[in-house]
Amino acid sequence: MKRILTLMLMLAMVITISAEKKAKYVFYFITDGTGVNTVLGAEMYNAEMQGRIGRVPFCMTSFPIVGVASTYSNNSGVTDSAASGSALATGVKTENGALGMRPDLKTPVTSIAVWAKEAGMKVGVASSVTINHATPAAFYAHQPKRSLSYDIAKDMIATDLDFYGGSAVEKAEDPKNHPGAPCIYKEMEKAGYAVAFGMADYQKKAKKAKKMLLVQDPKHLNPASDIYSLPYAIDVKDGEMTIEDILRAEIEFLMRDNKNGFFLMNEIGGKVDWACHGHDGATAFAEVGAVDRCIKIAYEFYKQHPDETLIVLTADHETGGLVLANNGLYALNLKALGNQKVSIDGFTQVLRDLRKQTSNKVTWEQAKQALTDNFGFWTALELTKDEEASLQKVWHESFEGKAEDVKNEYTANEPLAEEARHIINTKALISWSTNGHSAGLVPVYAIGVGSEQFMGHNDNAQIPVKIAKAAGYNIPEYLK
Amino acid sequence: MKRILTLMLMLAMVITISAEKKAKYVFYFITDGTGVNTVLGAEMYNAEMQGRIGRVPFCMTSFPIVGVASTYSNNSGVTDSAASGSALATGVKTENGALGMRPDLKTPVTSIAVWAKEAGMKVGVASSVTINHATPAAFYAHQPKRSLSYDIAKDMIATDLDFYGGSAVEKAEDPKNHPGAPCIYKEMEKAGYAVAFGMADYQKKAKKAKKMLLVQDPKHLNPASDIYSLPYAIDVKDGEMTIEDILRAEIEFLMRDNKNGFFLMNEIGGKVDWACHGHDGATAFAEVGAVDRCIKIAYEFYKQHPDETLIVLTADHETGGLVLANNGLYALNLKALGNQKVSIDGFTQVLRDLRKQTSNKVTWEQAKQALTDNFGFWTALELTKDEEASLQKVWHESFEGKAEDVKNEYTANEPLAEEARHIINTKALISWSTNGHSAGLVPVYAIGVGSEQFMGHNDNAQIPVKIAKAAGYNIPEYLK
Repeated sequence: MKRILTLMLMLAMVITISAEKKAKYVFYFITDGTGVNTVLGAEMYNAEMQGRIGRVPFCMTSFPIVGVASTYSNNSGVTDSAASGSALATGVKTENGALGMRPDLKTPVTSIAVWAKEAGMKVGVASSVTINHATPAAFYAHQPKRSLSYDIAKDMIATDLDFYGGSAVEKAEDPKNHPGAPCIYKEMEKAGYAVAFGMADYQKKAKKAKKMLLVQDPKHLNPASDIYSLPYAIDVKDGEMTIEDILRAEIEFLMRDNKNGFFLMNEIGGKVDWACHGHDGATAFAEVGAVDRCIKIAYEFYKQHPDETLIVLTADHETGGLVLANNGLYALNLKALGNQKVSIDGFTQVLRDLRKQTSNKVTWEQAKQALTDNFGFWTALELTKDEEASLQKVWHESFEGKAEDVKNEYTANEPLAEEARHIINTKALISWSTNGHSAGLVPVYAIGVGSEQFMGHNDNAQIPVKIAKAAGYNIPEYLK
Repeated sequence: MKRILTLMLMLAMVITISAEKKAKYVFYFITDGTGVNTVLGAEMYNAEMQGRIGRVPFCMTSFPIVGVASTYSNNSGVTDSAASGSALATGVKTENGALGMRPDLKTPVTSIAVWAKEAGMKVGVASSVTINHATPAAFYAHQPKRSLSYDIAKDMIATDLDFYGGSAVEKAEDPKNHPGAPCIYKEMEKAGYAVAFGMADYQKKAKKAKKMLLVQDPKHLNPASDIYSLPYAIDVKDGEMTIEDILRAEIEFLMRDNKNGFFLMNEIGGKVDWACHGHDGATAFAEVGAVDRCIKIAYEFYKQHPDETLIVLTADHETGGLVLANNGLYALNLKALGNQKVSIDGFTQVLRDLRKQTSNKVTWEQAKQALTDNFGFWTALELTKDEEASLQKVWHESFEGKAEDVKNEYTANEPLAEEARHIINTKALISWSTNGHSAGLVPVYAIGVGSEQFMGHNDNAQIPVKIAKAAGYNIPEYLK
């Protein structure tokens, strides 16, 4: 009985603290295209890499609150990133494709980033893809179409947040649709932003800057990537900017001379979505690992400010329809993916480099060696005769003939890279069901002040409202 | 502040009650083959049937605790129902195929049904399929192989629980493997069980019975079903026994002259699994609806005994790899499934009846009419020329030629029924990825005394231990 009373008292104290304290520091993370089983797959993959069946729990899945969220949009059971980003940002479901607008595609609705700003918080929005891609854009833009990149970028200036970060600004100039319109980077500078290209530049400019736009140094990009995204975790090389770098910079930037607190929304798994669109399992699981590294950074902050911090991670939708099973077999063999050393985009680059080196005369032996080096084929992973034959056929068609690149949502890959992907998925005994999104449940992981609100089933549009309550931001009347 | 203090006091009271009270009445439900997205799919289907996009939340998903569980077995990332049933029953993960035994396939481990019995509870175990199928068997049997149906059935008598219910006893006689061995029904009667065949028989025998085995009346089976399972919810006809009937009878039976309380484990969605093995979406969603009807019955009981009841629902694994998306489209059309009037097994029966009526000369017009009547093809659902052609081709092959039945895990169906299934799935924009199980997360829904333990991520083997703690049963030393 004594133990029960002590427990009672402790819990009552926690409840009292929770009821009185506000979340002064809010970390709102969105991992794009990540269903509950994308995360489970990564955990089970990590266990198999340790030589056992089971899970290696991530920091995020070990949070006290592990809930789920539904993601359907106003007009479709299967959302796109614009509509789901808008629901997660504004609490209002809208039409697929629209950003920060009601389903009428005319009436703008404000986001939690703005509510936080109005409450006196410093505010940051960042992404592992371009800063004007759908998910981050939903937090500051009001446009009927996600493809209006230049207009979205202009909304960054209009909404005037303290920190923006990403791989780049997409269509910073847009001569086709906006002939003669000024470059967004210059406009940002005019509006008082320091524009930093890469971490070294950031270190130089951050101290004096009042507002910041941090993007990659276009002179130092990963060869398998480009300005449109940060490199995949599986591909990243020393010195290349990562989403962890952006997050660390952002926390430091927002904490400076700040008595009120901050709100930051980072899309930390923008390329989980890309990898899942491309059915690239090893790359997707490595991206989920990078997501968890960001969560750990936030968790370290939380441990310093446990009574004033809220961390919430969710996803905007599930992509690719990953199923942890294949062909009716009662087994997984995820460790097969451990032999994959680069993303499928990265292997495409390997093959393109080989083309250059050989004046486009890549022999089967050279291709085979590249497949061995990057997928463990014929060494760690035995191939069947059919698998070898199918690889050789694709090599023949694309290196002796003229097979076209295979187009995915965000990339176009060498056919041989795609065939290797198909084979290693089969070896790993996983399946993919669609090259788009699905309505599947996404995870909600939370810790800190107000986190108990995220227990159980959430709908995506409820999430910003719950965060606002925890942080004490005023929410618009129509959400009350 | 006053409000906070009141809240604090109320919560402290709840915690005190929760810490002091034991779950006198435990409802442990397992829905076979049901992943988190199987339930979401059914909720979104029900919303579309109401003419809107979204979810119609079930009673179960509205419980205060909505968690998830991982299901891998001791030897495989993808479990079978025997290994997962064993984990859910005994707290010990074992090899696929084994029941109530350690991975050595020799050492028996007791289940929570036995722990409850030892604690003085009345105990019931029931299933919507046979009572000696893998899932219910895991709660009373100790056999190295799930296929040893007769031996498993004998373990019912050895474990001596108060109530067993199901569609039938599989291999109640087994002349091939146990020549001359007595019929299990007779053995049960010898051991003091009343054996009731159907609800009318149950009503006659229940009052005087001390122990009960309730199965279907083999003289009144659904034409599309057989003794191996209760009819699908989508097929069931008035007067046929349902899992809701069994549950109501079981509660009444276990409550009679009972001061100590009860523990019941019912596999209430045994045929969600079967429908998902067969990729039969409409049938699976209707089964999930039946699962929720059972949950509502338990919830009504909970409302009468809120301080003494625990309800936990989980699933043993996900089956079929259902993905709520198809072919890269950003849309669902689940309402298409509303045109399906019978299960695929049921439509097979329709076609077999037609064969009988026509001396096996079913014309295309007759087949077409049956497809219209049972799937809304050509009326509610327009077909493309290709779809019509594929149906006609299959009709030609199987009614003018001799195409063989299509075998699934549990049934063999007419090829035309399978083709209709394929087309209506495509119309509904859903996908299936495997004809077996997957490692995908399953739901955990809980309410009542001790339910807070099921928040967040569970592993299947933790669930019986958590229930035992809530109910105050002694658990074996090796689980402490």
